[in-house]
Amino acid sequence: MSDRYFSETFKPRFSDTDGLGHINNTMVPVWFEGARDEVFKWFTPDLDLQQWKLILAKIDVTFHGQMYYQQPMEVRTYIGRIGSSSFDVYQELWQQDKCCASGTAVMVHFDYQTQKTVKIPPSIVEKMTDYLKK
Amino acid sequence: MSDRYFSETFKPRFSDTDGLGHINNTMVPVWFEGARDEVFKWFTPDLDLQQWKLILAKIDVTFHGQMYYQQPMEVRTYIGRIGSSSFDVYQELWQQDKCCASGTAVMVHFDYQTQKTVKIPPSIVEKMTDYLKK
Amino acid sequence: MSDRYFSETFKPRFSDTDGLGHINNTMVPVWFEGARDEVFKWFTPDLDLQQWKLILAKIDVTFHGQMYYQQPMEVRTYIGRIGSSSFDVYQELWQQDKCCASGTAVMVHFDYQTQKTVKIPPSIVEKMTDYLKK
Amino acid sequence: MSDRYFSETFKPRFSDTDGLGHINNTMVPVWFEGARDEVFKWFTPDLDLQQWKLILAKIDVTFHGQMYYQQPMEVRTYIGRIGSSSFDVYQELWQQDKCCASGTAVMVHFDYQTQKTVKIPPSIVEKMTDYLKK
Repeated sequence: MSDRYFSETFKPRFSDTDGLGHINNTMVPVWFEGARDEVFKWFTPDLDLQQWKLILAKIDVTFHGQMYYQQPMEVRTYIGRIGSSSFDVYQELWQQDKCCASGTAVMVHFDYQTQKTVKIPPSIVEKMTDYLKK
Repeated sequence: MSDRYFSETFKPRFSDTDGLGHINNTMVPVWFEGARDEVFKWFTPDLDLQQWKLILAKIDVTFHGQMYYQQPMEVRTYIGRIGSSSFDVYQELWQQDKCCASGTAVMVHFDYQTQKTVKIPPSIVEKMTDYLKK
Repeated sequence: MSDRYFSETFKPRFSDTDGLGHINNTMVPVWFEGARDEVFKWFTPDLDLQQWKLILAKIDVTFHGQMYYQQPMEVRTYIGRIGSSSFDVYQELWQQDKCCASGTAVMVHFDYQTQKTVKIPPSIVEKMTDYLKK
Repeated sequence: MSDRYFSETFKPRFSDTDGLGHINNTMVPVWFEGARDEVFKWFTPDLDLQQWKLILAKIDVTFHGQMYYQQPMEVRTYIGRIGSSSFDVYQELWQQDKCCASGTAVMVHFDYQTQKTVKIPPSIVEKMTDYLKK
């Protein structure tokens, strides 16, 4: 089985910089969440916010190097762990062939009406397995 | 009648700066919208998003001077014009006794269900009149 | 001469939505500034923030329709007016064949060291002319 | 010795909400960084960005409950660990007597010119000790 990931490339914006002249660290959680769309679609294929089924339990981000406004970026999105009703999304931010930041988001399959966690359906577990980080 | 305004003071944040070392201009619409809460409350007293009654038609912001991370800020919120179903909110951003930015937001009284504009009730017009910028 | 514009396409992010279920209006100035990169490059080809030569005098944005998280967007960037030391950038935000927002940014050619406005060089005026909105 | 913390209170803004009707999780790193100002001042008393001496190595945030637009918030900032050249800032976000989020930022004392880590001066260690989370 391959080490597959979802790849999303984009251009940082002027307003993403901070007074130290680089990209501000608070943009990374924004970009990581944005790049989890393909994961969200497993649960809500049309991304309808009224049918949302995931809640975020935890994030961490480790910063490996400065990020710059002037070059394009890529977020690589893997699955890091598959639990019964929760799972980890592991992500890396690449710029100019360097991994500048990496982190994990713990997502919980959740029913907003009953406010309870829900088991992840086997069909989604199967899709996830393809994206497990080795 | 007095020249009254709503005053909101706050501290800019590190992440509000940009690579030129000052506050990034895109924060001003965020701060102005945030400071319109008192205006929103005339229409939705408990700020319940399910009962929202306003839609934004237009904004403009003029930048008069650099804004800095290191000092507190004040937004002053006035009413700039009262129409039949729309009105203007005029706002100023002050820092260290200087007006650094000013602008107008055109708000429309709106029914999200029927997707139609609605006349502003006289009781709200009365409240607004107190805050008219002279 | 053609009606040329710079085109930038991108995907809105989950965090760009607001409690009304659509894209929050404050994202538009962020996206418009981001899409002015090609204009910035006329003045600072490598986008080096230490060599920045532009300052923002004014923005306005008119909102024509709701913007959604689920579909890609395009910003079209034109030149709206060419003055002696300042110029207007006119921009439109398109989603699903609709222009959802449009606006103008007044940019000033500026020397940050002397804190003075500077005439726009003829070579840049020539480049701009190609992108004049008709 | 007391269990002291820096307290910062503020009002969430309309644009901080997301399409699920609550505060978007990506605001928490922004608010936590903003509330580290008092920590930053130990290293750069006037917050002069040209004299910055800290770099961020890692953040994590755990989400304990939904956060709402309608009520004020408080960030409590403690010191979580004091190392030789790095330290942890531990922070909590409170709303309506509930801790909605908590997390740790690993900060490194850093010389941006030589790009090297620097030992934390004893005088600052002493100040930090007062704010150690017990």
